[in-house]
Amino acid sequence: MSTSASQNIPPIALPFVSERAKKLLDVVERFVHEECIPADPVFFSQVGTGDARWHGHPSIIDELKKKARTLGMWNMFLPKNHYKNGPQFTNLEYALMAEYLGKSTIASEACNCSPPDTGNMEVFARYGSPAQKDQWLKPLMEGEIRSAFLMTEPNIASSDGSNIQLRIERRGDYYLLNGSKTWASGTGDERCKVYLVMGKTNPDHPDQYRRQSIILVPSDTPGMKIHRMLSVYGYDDAPHGHGQITFTNVKVPLDALILGEGRGFEIMQGRLGPGRIHHAMRAIGAAEYALEWLINRLNDERKKPFGKRLSEHGVLLEWVAKSRIEIDASRLIVLNAAIKIDQMDAKFALKEIAAAKIKVPQVALEVVDRAIQVHGALGVGQDTPLASMWAHLRTLRIADGPDEAHLQQLGRRENKQRKDEVKRRLAQQQAKTEFLFHSMGVDRKELGAAKFNAKL
Amino acid sequence: MSTSASQNIPPIALPFVSERAKKLLDVVERFVHEECIPADPVFFSQVGTGDARWHGHPSIIDELKKKARTLGMWNMFLPKNHYKNGPQFTNLEYALMAEYLGKSTIASEACNCSPPDTGNMEVFARYGSPAQKDQWLKPLMEGEIRSAFLMTEPNIASSDGSNIQLRIERRGDYYLLNGSKTWASGTGDERCKVYLVMGKTNPDHPDQYRRQSIILVPSDTPGMKIHRMLSVYGYDDAPHGHGQITFTNVKVPLDALILGEGRGFEIMQGRLGPGRIHHAMRAIGAAEYALEWLINRLNDERKKPFGKRLSEHGVLLEWVAKSRIEIDASRLIVLNAAIKIDQMDAKFALKEIAAAKIKVPQVALEVVDRAIQVHGALGVGQDTPLASMWAHLRTLRIADGPDEAHLQQLGRRENKQRKDEVKRRLAQQQAKTEFLFHSMGVDRKELGAAKFNAKL
Amino acid sequence: MSTSASQNIPPIALPFVSERAKKLLDVVERFVHEECIPADPVFFSQVGTGDARWHGHPSIIDELKKKARTLGMWNMFLPKNHYKNGPQFTNLEYALMAEYLGKSTIASEACNCSPPDTGNMEVFARYGSPAQKDQWLKPLMEGEIRSAFLMTEPNIASSDGSNIQLRIERRGDYYLLNGSKTWASGTGDERCKVYLVMGKTNPDHPDQYRRQSIILVPSDTPGMKIHRMLSVYGYDDAPHGHGQITFTNVKVPLDALILGEGRGFEIMQGRLGPGRIHHAMRAIGAAEYALEWLINRLNDERKKPFGKRLSEHGVLLEWVAKSRIEIDASRLIVLNAAIKIDQMDAKFALKEIAAAKIKVPQVALEVVDRAIQVHGALGVGQDTPLASMWAHLRTLRIADGPDEAHLQQLGRRENKQRKDEVKRRLAQQQAKTEFLFHSMGVDRKELGAAKFNAKL
Amino acid sequence: MSTSASQNIPPIALPFVSERAKKLLDVVERFVHEECIPADPVFFSQVGTGDARWHGHPSIIDELKKKARTLGMWNMFLPKNHYKNGPQFTNLEYALMAEYLGKSTIASEACNCSPPDTGNMEVFARYGSPAQKDQWLKPLMEGEIRSAFLMTEPNIASSDGSNIQLRIERRGDYYLLNGSKTWASGTGDERCKVYLVMGKTNPDHPDQYRRQSIILVPSDTPGMKIHRMLSVYGYDDAPHGHGQITFTNVKVPLDALILGEGRGFEIMQGRLGPGRIHHAMRAIGAAEYALEWLINRLNDERKKPFGKRLSEHGVLLEWVAKSRIEIDASRLIVLNAAIKIDQMDAKFALKEIAAAKIKVPQVALEVVDRAIQVHGALGVGQDTPLASMWAHLRTLRIADGPDEAHLQQLGRRENKQRKDEVKRRLAQQQAKTEFLFHSMGVDRKELGAAKFNAKL
Repeated sequence: MSTSASQNIPPIALPFVSERAKKLLDVVERFVHEECIPADPVFFSQVGTGDARWHGHPSIIDELKKKARTLGMWNMFLPKNHYKNGPQFTNLEYALMAEYLGKSTIASEACNCSPPDTGNMEVFARYGSPAQKDQWLKPLMEGEIRSAFLMTEPNIASSDGSNIQLRIERRGDYYLLNGSKTWASGTGDERCKVYLVMGKTNPDHPDQYRRQSIILVPSDTPGMKIHRMLSVYGYDDAPHGHGQITFTNVKVPLDALILGEGRGFEIMQGRLGPGRIHHAMRAIGAAEYALEWLINRLNDERKKPFGKRLSEHGVLLEWVAKSRIEIDASRLIVLNAAIKIDQMDAKFALKEIAAAKIKVPQVALEVVDRAIQVHGALGVGQDTPLASMWAHLRTLRIADGPDEAHLQQLGRRENKQRKDEVKRRLAQQQAKTEFLFHSMGVDRKELGAAKFNAKL
Repeated sequence: MSTSASQNIPPIALPFVSERAKKLLDVVERFVHEECIPADPVFFSQVGTGDARWHGHPSIIDELKKKARTLGMWNMFLPKNHYKNGPQFTNLEYALMAEYLGKSTIASEACNCSPPDTGNMEVFARYGSPAQKDQWLKPLMEGEIRSAFLMTEPNIASSDGSNIQLRIERRGDYYLLNGSKTWASGTGDERCKVYLVMGKTNPDHPDQYRRQSIILVPSDTPGMKIHRMLSVYGYDDAPHGHGQITFTNVKVPLDALILGEGRGFEIMQGRLGPGRIHHAMRAIGAAEYALEWLINRLNDERKKPFGKRLSEHGVLLEWVAKSRIEIDASRLIVLNAAIKIDQMDAKFALKEIAAAKIKVPQVALEVVDRAIQVHGALGVGQDTPLASMWAHLRTLRIADGPDEAHLQQLGRRENKQRKDEVKRRLAQQQAKTEFLFHSMGVDRKELGAAKFNAKL
Repeated sequence: MSTSASQNIPPIALPFVSERAKKLLDVVERFVHEECIPADPVFFSQVGTGDARWHGHPSIIDELKKKARTLGMWNMFLPKNHYKNGPQFTNLEYALMAEYLGKSTIASEACNCSPPDTGNMEVFARYGSPAQKDQWLKPLMEGEIRSAFLMTEPNIASSDGSNIQLRIERRGDYYLLNGSKTWASGTGDERCKVYLVMGKTNPDHPDQYRRQSIILVPSDTPGMKIHRMLSVYGYDDAPHGHGQITFTNVKVPLDALILGEGRGFEIMQGRLGPGRIHHAMRAIGAAEYALEWLINRLNDERKKPFGKRLSEHGVLLEWVAKSRIEIDASRLIVLNAAIKIDQMDAKFALKEIAAAKIKVPQVALEVVDRAIQVHGALGVGQDTPLASMWAHLRTLRIADGPDEAHLQQLGRRENKQRKDEVKRRLAQQQAKTEFLFHSMGVDRKELGAAKFNAKL
Repeated sequence: MSTSASQNIPPIALPFVSERAKKLLDVVERFVHEECIPADPVFFSQVGTGDARWHGHPSIIDELKKKARTLGMWNMFLPKNHYKNGPQFTNLEYALMAEYLGKSTIASEACNCSPPDTGNMEVFARYGSPAQKDQWLKPLMEGEIRSAFLMTEPNIASSDGSNIQLRIERRGDYYLLNGSKTWASGTGDERCKVYLVMGKTNPDHPDQYRRQSIILVPSDTPGMKIHRMLSVYGYDDAPHGHGQITFTNVKVPLDALILGEGRGFEIMQGRLGPGRIHHAMRAIGAAEYALEWLINRLNDERKKPFGKRLSEHGVLLEWVAKSRIEIDASRLIVLNAAIKIDQMDAKFALKEIAAAKIKVPQVALEVVDRAIQVHGALGVGQDTPLASMWAHLRTLRIADGPDEAHLQQLGRRENKQRKDEVKRRLAQQQAKTEFLFHSMGVDRKELGAAKFNAKL
């Protein structure tokens, strides 16, 4: 018998989930299972073919948005400790919902919870001026417009934000922007009305993390040129898209700067924590969904290679078990990180967030790859969501810095934080051991010493 | 700056830990760090060499036991829901303590929390008759005697308990035991006074899991012969030891049976759940301790291969990070399982316990192996606890059934429990998709269909 | 300094390579590096967008074919032991060339060495009637037409060929075909003029591997309908394409059958061996090419995350080393298999071919994935060949049966072939040991036996 | 049916093996299978218990040596290109024999082919003075004495030989040695009569690889003290042993220096190449032997967990297959390296030797670990050779430098050797692509460009 989402919350997380959140979680689950997943193929067909893919957007998304809002599923991502007028859920509570949203391509957008809008709305909510909130946060929260966050640049090591080249120069009463951006996700969509652009205002500041600022640029500002869209393993992600854009003498008024000059890093850091939790939980949802496809395939009566149903093949059962274990472990890591963000703040949960950022996509990719493998050729094609899911999960190992950069930072931090204590303690323990041998009058028993000491 | 054990409890677990448990946890931490770890090498030297290793036991263990008891660290493993007269901690609370006990070879015994006594005491507490409790549980809880659990037999697949061969035949007013047991851990120790022996009383019972019983056999009962001790890699684990024993017409009174004929499996199942949590948490403690050795080595000023300190080598920092992530994920899995046992019972937490049983030893082995590798030859020898730690952790992938058996069961159970729901839901989703295409008047966009359909 | 392809042949393989083959190998290397790789992006641009992608084919391929033929690179795959009129290279010699062809999308076709034509030509050469050779083999060898091999069907376990459903019924002087095929690679191309179709002629034959036949169907035969093309992770592979096709009362003359009724499996087996070698060596070439991109990236002066060039990051150097080791090991496996095919026949090299089939794609996928990872977002997009390469290599773990089926067969065969010898030998060795103890008068030293035996 | 060792040589290696070598290979195979493996347990029992383990050596080894010599199996390791008076086999030919020797603990010594004597004899043969050869090489080649190679020191990073601290100071007509050595393998054996000691004669030489020398020290020289023996995962390896030794004003005559001052590194490099091939091939033999135990266990009629024989469990068959593939791949790597050493010299085969050094132990460890796992508790104990085999193979990942150091060197070398060529070629290819677009008048097709270019 099937259990509801709220009944499947790991016992260890239950004390952190309000009754109100449990109820909405079950609504989200049904909405995703009964409305969004079935609508995904319709969405893709509505996108169309050829150049038409970049014009307009599928009508089904608007219908789902209406339904979602009616059912109370709207902007759930806005954490209660940062925004008083949102739906008042904690990061932990939204994390549980985000898992379900991650099972469908369009569910997040249907609930106005899709990146990069979520992170951008958080930026507006935490750091925006009243005028900025009025102009951009309001329509974003209403789901009327969309937005983009432009950080990555071509030809630099994007894992290290201090490398950013785009120049934001103050010229009297405006800023002048010159440079180029790539992988600007969402810029293909005609509803995308505003870009949050990271650039350098203070290239000579002695602190390399105080040189950057974030500035708002309406998408129809002259001087910006979208050259093309980038693909993800053959998927163009229309109409959303990932654009490559150049800025040539783009003029923006002074009050378009968020928070002030040199505060770009600070904003970005605040933006990343919860966003990584969202990404991670959606990835877990994708992994769960892939596991469903895997189980479905194992029990397909028509598939009996070598006389046995797939579910009787031990190797495949081991895949189910390993997937189960690793998905569950990953979820606990993310939920624990979310709780730490709720209790303290993202900056006190860097280790936990990094662990989630690194581990979850690897687990999810492996589960999805297993599901693809049991489907054979069907798995790599367009008739299951698996191949597309894999391709998009794969980008999570790169986005916001590659795994390797995060592993280095995590390892370096752990080493730095613990080395003095560890060295001191091991030394003390060894000294105490020596003391014990001495005080107790016990001889160290050394291998072969009886013979070799006698000899000499 | 160093933080105490209670401050390091993952936030997600905190609601389940009483203040009293936090206080004792910090006492345990200090005891292990300051008393037990330094005493480990003394213990090994006191064991002696050659045949002397099997006579008596190191005096340092008795001193530590006294200290531990004085400080309130005694029998903490006995879960409050099963035993009213114990120290009243939950499985979750003890799990946190067991992690620290796992850092030292002798800490568990010092607190009277070492296997197989712990599981045996649980058996007595849950299933023993008043007389059995009086005779055996009392001295066990006082730490006056030790015990063994004899299940594994030579030449059968021990992962499947239904294979057990040792016969327990009723003959009038006694039982007659014939057969052989191996890997009887603890039987080398002269303090080991009682064996819990699993055997077949009802070999013809139609239910293959009702054929076994567990019976108590005092270690000096005539007819039992210990042939030799078995080693773990090159370690003999004296004086504890792992014995190979034959039973030849061993007579035991009728009231030596626990709970009744045919209830051996039931007892064993109840025994395994918490025991696996203990093993897993001790393994996590071992992994944390190995990580400390690893970090200590990375910061050894004398080690600068190729001009860089080890802590500047990226590959080794990645080891630190990966160890950190996987240890933390493993701990959450185990704690979540412990909570489920506390809230329901072990039999409702089979999936969670199995996950812990499978994942934790693999993670711990990998962390310890990394610590060995950075120590070079030093790591495989006797001057660090690492090689011995690895060898003993390795047995956890085999004990109580090999990983592969648990993976099969876990995979099979997951598949069985979920297949109907999953198949139904995917089918419903696909039907709903068809309905949407139809009702919305949208055509499925098929790749190349424009051309190829036109052609025909 | 750079060395030529013939100088890079592993010393162990050199005795098997003629001077003539070495010379052509160097020609192939230069052709691929200087003509084909640069032409790949032109090819993709010429394919066009939208429906145009399925009409015609890029002109650049015709130019490359002309050049290749002039330079003597034509049909090199045809093994000298099966076809007297080909270019007379061994499987080993062609394998070395195929590695280079695998670095470019279009190089194989440029040399008339691209699948599925290669396998189909081998079928015609080995099993075709003179008339069949005249009608189809001749234009195929001239590169005037292309062909497809239709085996996979929807909704059956394709790893087990005995499941095939398409019916080939004899009706007087023709065969009637009914059924459906999917993943029919090459059917998108207008130059594809003939299909080799696997179906069941003798569904009731007691030997399940004698029920299938292969029959030739011209691509314009009435009754066949291509419904759509299938994608590989978002890539449509136009104009080649992977078609889904139904057969409704398709009539084919009796002499369209190859070799005779019930011999489909035999033909397919003969076809697979060399084809798997080709696939494997092309995959190795792809891996080598990805490693070049990886090295190129490591030495990009513009990429200095955290102040160090990528080539100074130890983790990435380890990737280079591991890639080097595994690519080299894989190549030796494939070359050894090719030699065995040359010396005996594919059916005596099943173990070696299976090893290559399983190991090479996994190694290549890992190397390409590493190259993607160091390129960050650039790696998943269209500006390097890496993402497309990965997606297509991924299908090799599925095509001709999933890895898991091959691993089972390989494991089962190894177990079956060796178990009797192994059991016998180990038993004999143990008996000999007993004899030695006895004859030499040596006692078995058993751990702890001195004490425990004394006690009893 | 069983095939002989010479029939199992991979086809690709056959051209390099003389008929004479094939014949002896078959003799070696039978000797190992029929004499040595059965004698291994006798050897261990003869070693005895307690301190007796370090006195004398088992008589069975002397008997086997006699047999081996009679059968022509003596000093086969001495490569024909370095020693005219040896048995005249190539490194490749001996490698094939070494694989079989690796299946038994005592087979190598029985054929006078056991390390560290082999490497030491090579040193004497290549670099020794006539007097040194007469005094030491002669009795070593006769198997009358044994020897040790003292390089590793406590408390330094042994992966980087330039760190060596032991001082060798010239004082008039003798050298004075002060310092300490550890992991001096073989120093436990009373037959070990000479140590080759690496130390610093020229600590101030500007070239850090010209500071070291190797000097001969008879094992009874005053001033040396063996403090104890080191264990390997609990195994003491008596009577061979791994000693920790201090040197206090040890006097050695001037002519005890090999080759000359400052040439220690040169000698060590020449010594390592073939030695690594030997280690690797013995490890492959160990892996093959473990695979035999694995297969034996899978077919044990008494083992039927959950009603199926182990050989019917798919996961275990996959282990057989993966073991088969990786062992075979590893062997080809080593044989190819051996051929390169034979044709050129070890210093031209650094990449190939490093690959073997890194990959083979990892593969062997995994195969042995699988064999242990299927044996359950039996696998970690003393009743199979598996646990001991694993422990000793594990040291190969550390000995002569840890894997990580070799991976860094291999990665660095590959990167250095190839980066210029690779960068140049990719740049040329990209330039050629641009040229083709231009010359052919083809436009680059860019995703979405039609729309976005039109807009602006």
